[in-house]
Amino acid sequence: MNAEYARFLLLAREIRDLGAAGALLAWDQEVLLPPKGLAARARHRAALAGVVHEKMCAPGYGELVDGLAADGELGGGLEDRADAAAAAAVREAKRDRDRAVKIPHALVTELAEATSLSQQAWQEARARDDWPAFAPHLARLVALKRREAAAVGHEGEPYNALLDEFEPGARVETLAPLLSGLAAEIVPLIAAIGEARARTGDDPGALLRGDFDVVRQEKFSREVLAGMGFDMAAGRLDVSAHPFTSGTGPGDVRLTTRYDPCDLRVGLYATIHEGGHGLYEQGLPVEFEGTPLGDCASLGIHESQSRLWENFVGRSRAFWEHWAPRARELFPERLGRAAPEALHRAVNEVRPSLIRIEADEVTYNLHIALRLELERALLAGEIETADLPALWNARLRSTLGLTPATNREGVLQDIHWACGLFGYFPTYTLGNLYAAQLREAAAAALGDLDALVARGDTAPLLAWLRAHVHARGRLLRAGALCREVTGRDLETAPFVRYLQGKFGALYGV
Amino acid sequence: MNAEYARFLLLAREIRDLGAAGALLAWDQEVLLPPKGLAARARHRAALAGVVHEKMCAPGYGELVDGLAADGELGGGLEDRADAAAAAAVREAKRDRDRAVKIPHALVTELAEATSLSQQAWQEARARDDWPAFAPHLARLVALKRREAAAVGHEGEPYNALLDEFEPGARVETLAPLLSGLAAEIVPLIAAIGEARARTGDDPGALLRGDFDVVRQEKFSREVLAGMGFDMAAGRLDVSAHPFTSGTGPGDVRLTTRYDPCDLRVGLYATIHEGGHGLYEQGLPVEFEGTPLGDCASLGIHESQSRLWENFVGRSRAFWEHWAPRARELFPERLGRAAPEALHRAVNEVRPSLIRIEADEVTYNLHIALRLELERALLAGEIETADLPALWNARLRSTLGLTPATNREGVLQDIHWACGLFGYFPTYTLGNLYAAQLREAAAAALGDLDALVARGDTAPLLAWLRAHVHARGRLLRAGALCREVTGRDLETAPFVRYLQGKFGALYGV
Repeated sequence: MNAEYARFLLLAREIRDLGAAGALLAWDQEVLLPPKGLAARARHRAALAGVVHEKMCAPGYGELVDGLAADGELGGGLEDRADAAAAAAVREAKRDRDRAVKIPHALVTELAEATSLSQQAWQEARARDDWPAFAPHLARLVALKRREAAAVGHEGEPYNALLDEFEPGARVETLAPLLSGLAAEIVPLIAAIGEARARTGDDPGALLRGDFDVVRQEKFSREVLAGMGFDMAAGRLDVSAHPFTSGTGPGDVRLTTRYDPCDLRVGLYATIHEGGHGLYEQGLPVEFEGTPLGDCASLGIHESQSRLWENFVGRSRAFWEHWAPRARELFPERLGRAAPEALHRAVNEVRPSLIRIEADEVTYNLHIALRLELERALLAGEIETADLPALWNARLRSTLGLTPATNREGVLQDIHWACGLFGYFPTYTLGNLYAAQLREAAAAALGDLDALVARGDTAPLLAWLRAHVHARGRLLRAGALCREVTGRDLETAPFVRYLQGKFGALYGV
Repeated sequence: MNAEYARFLLLAREIRDLGAAGALLAWDQEVLLPPKGLAARARHRAALAGVVHEKMCAPGYGELVDGLAADGELGGGLEDRADAAAAAAVREAKRDRDRAVKIPHALVTELAEATSLSQQAWQEARARDDWPAFAPHLARLVALKRREAAAVGHEGEPYNALLDEFEPGARVETLAPLLSGLAAEIVPLIAAIGEARARTGDDPGALLRGDFDVVRQEKFSREVLAGMGFDMAAGRLDVSAHPFTSGTGPGDVRLTTRYDPCDLRVGLYATIHEGGHGLYEQGLPVEFEGTPLGDCASLGIHESQSRLWENFVGRSRAFWEHWAPRARELFPERLGRAAPEALHRAVNEVRPSLIRIEADEVTYNLHIALRLELERALLAGEIETADLPALWNARLRSTLGLTPATNREGVLQDIHWACGLFGYFPTYTLGNLYAAQLREAAAAALGDLDALVARGDTAPLLAWLRAHVHARGRLLRAGALCREVTGRDLETAPFVRYLQGKFGALYGV
């Protein structure tokens, strides 16, 4: 390893270490921070974001990164894998830095402080269903993000500048048609399922609605997480208003969930979902920790991991073949002698609904399409934040036939915009698509995945994901990773095949 | 306010905001961090300490501070109080900076990483009573602290360079005789009490030893904290191996305690003690938050607040007149019809013991004298860390007539050295002395304090402390604060008067 590269690694690691400190402050704010600590916390986070930005923009670091990027021989005589890794580390560092230097320092700290404050405002506004209390925060954030997009620069729409942060190289002009194409295949399936439901009048979900003791729910969640292979010596599970995964490195991965005392599904599937994210984080390559390579390939790939565990594993019949006995033990009054088949049907109700994170696998992507449309228009300046509740409700009515009675169940339901995360939502649908394509590749390698899940033996699946996805970190971009692991570019077909197979059988359509 | 001063405030606040982020990382490490996250956490803390040091040493900040310190007209036309505050802010900032610039940057980050690692090593070594596992960490820290003392410079012994960080202006050559003088007054009292105990054969503490449900202990602790005026909307109470108070500002003050399921006193008095610290932190002046003035006057003054609440309030007969009914409700099997007098005697057992934080008020200061002697000799290079267990045990035998059976009850009992806190212990005895002197001043102003405590009405006491101590932040140094509030320099007499009065009555000596 040459001396320049070693110096680069030290500086890159310092930047990421400071970023990890910022991540802890953000996690703590969601989970533990006393309310009166909020204003100061916003300042602390802004100071930290400012320092990260300073370090990123420091001329010395820039010269190193640019010099190394222009150099062909990074590994300096090490074997090929090390050389490729070094080149990728420099490539990703250069990408991060080139983006950072375009954003004025004052905008960075202003954004950090504004998002910290607006997160808290969102929590309070959501609790009280008080859109007007949140609207000015959101308006300020949109204005700041538009300034950010302008500063970063973009081909096509301003939205691309933000999307690129989460899904490097993606463009909304390609992505939006992909989502529309998917919607075109899904809408008839939803209609067919709706007709089937109407014919039978079934309410399979009733089994899991009712009184479910929260302490036992937590116990169940922890057992399922352990079964997935999540390592509690390298992570935590806590409770927050909006479930998320965070942490400060592969040895400290923090999941949050939330339990609904009247519905077992809410907490369980939030936990499995975040557990899938957590397994990815715990599996990121330790040898690259603190460098740009120690990070995920993209948020789409990250979401593929949560979706794969939540839906393909957790909502499978096989999952309940393994877990039904334990669930009956924990909740004997409610679940009595419930069979795996009944539990499987209860967690796979397809029914247009208001809340994205509680939506079924089929309708879910229509929630994403709605958000993409609105945030794209916000960033383009075609609509104002003041218009959002009305537009949200109108769009939901036209796609899913529903109107939220409150903004709490509508435009206020997600934390993302309050965190300044515009361009983030589409990564959820990308995650579904990547997950389906990875699942076919895993099945080709491992054989009958359902048989493994039914035995409670998901270790081979995790090992496969570790080897092909997790341990690669950011060595490959999402598209390249997808081609390398599945042999094909990202497509909607595997996901549509999966939906049609699973729900066709469940509903006889 | 002139423009230079405004710029100074911005920079000083940024430094303190980054320090607050570091405080959160440290708190989280003690309370929540999964074990596998430790190595990275040490690196994250080192990176943050490095940045704080960089900012502190930045030439631009130095020129501002030095320029303002040489300037007589800081407030620029504002009224006197603002002018005095500005002068004090600059004075304290200059003191902090002058100290920081003398310490090499590499030493700062090395110390941060070493203390983070040795804290964890201490926790494990203490749990397993494994001194050899901790000894190399401690040896490394002592070597680093000696380098720090040499870099900072000192009159007299190297110890002074470290003491000065916690108790600005204090010198061990003055402090050690003060502690010896105190010991000379205490030792006969301990002997007299020992004889009285031997005569009666009483075991008043038996009342509070036994089975005390930890969940109820926590409930009781929280009620007592609320009664003291601790604001849970601006703070937290959690559990850690070694109770401490930390946080990120007056709106986020974090206490930790630890409950002994077999002794009610351990958790209760740890909570009240940390609660006293917490009240000080919550009362620090918000208008100075983020500046050097928003901090405590000294650790001795900080400790005076914890001692005052723990001992003068919490261990008074009046306290139990108010709290006995509630304690009986919570622990009916154990406390039955226990009278305030019996509870008072149970929490005021004077008996030479092994563990400092469980020691009674009379013997406590001998534990401090032992630690001061050992750490002073370590810093002077007169003894080696390898000698510590033997010296500890010999010294304890000669002063308290006891020999620890394990290092866990001896040299491994305190976290301080593992955190690199050398020169910190004497602030505990200073705290006792300041507390006694402040108590006499408060009583002179408020009348019968015990009558207030017996009514559960400690609000006037808190208001007095807020006005005279808390709200002043670091506006006055400890010595000046003591003179201003009590009219005298710090003396041992008020504390000795208090001990003789209280324990003379309790033991008839």
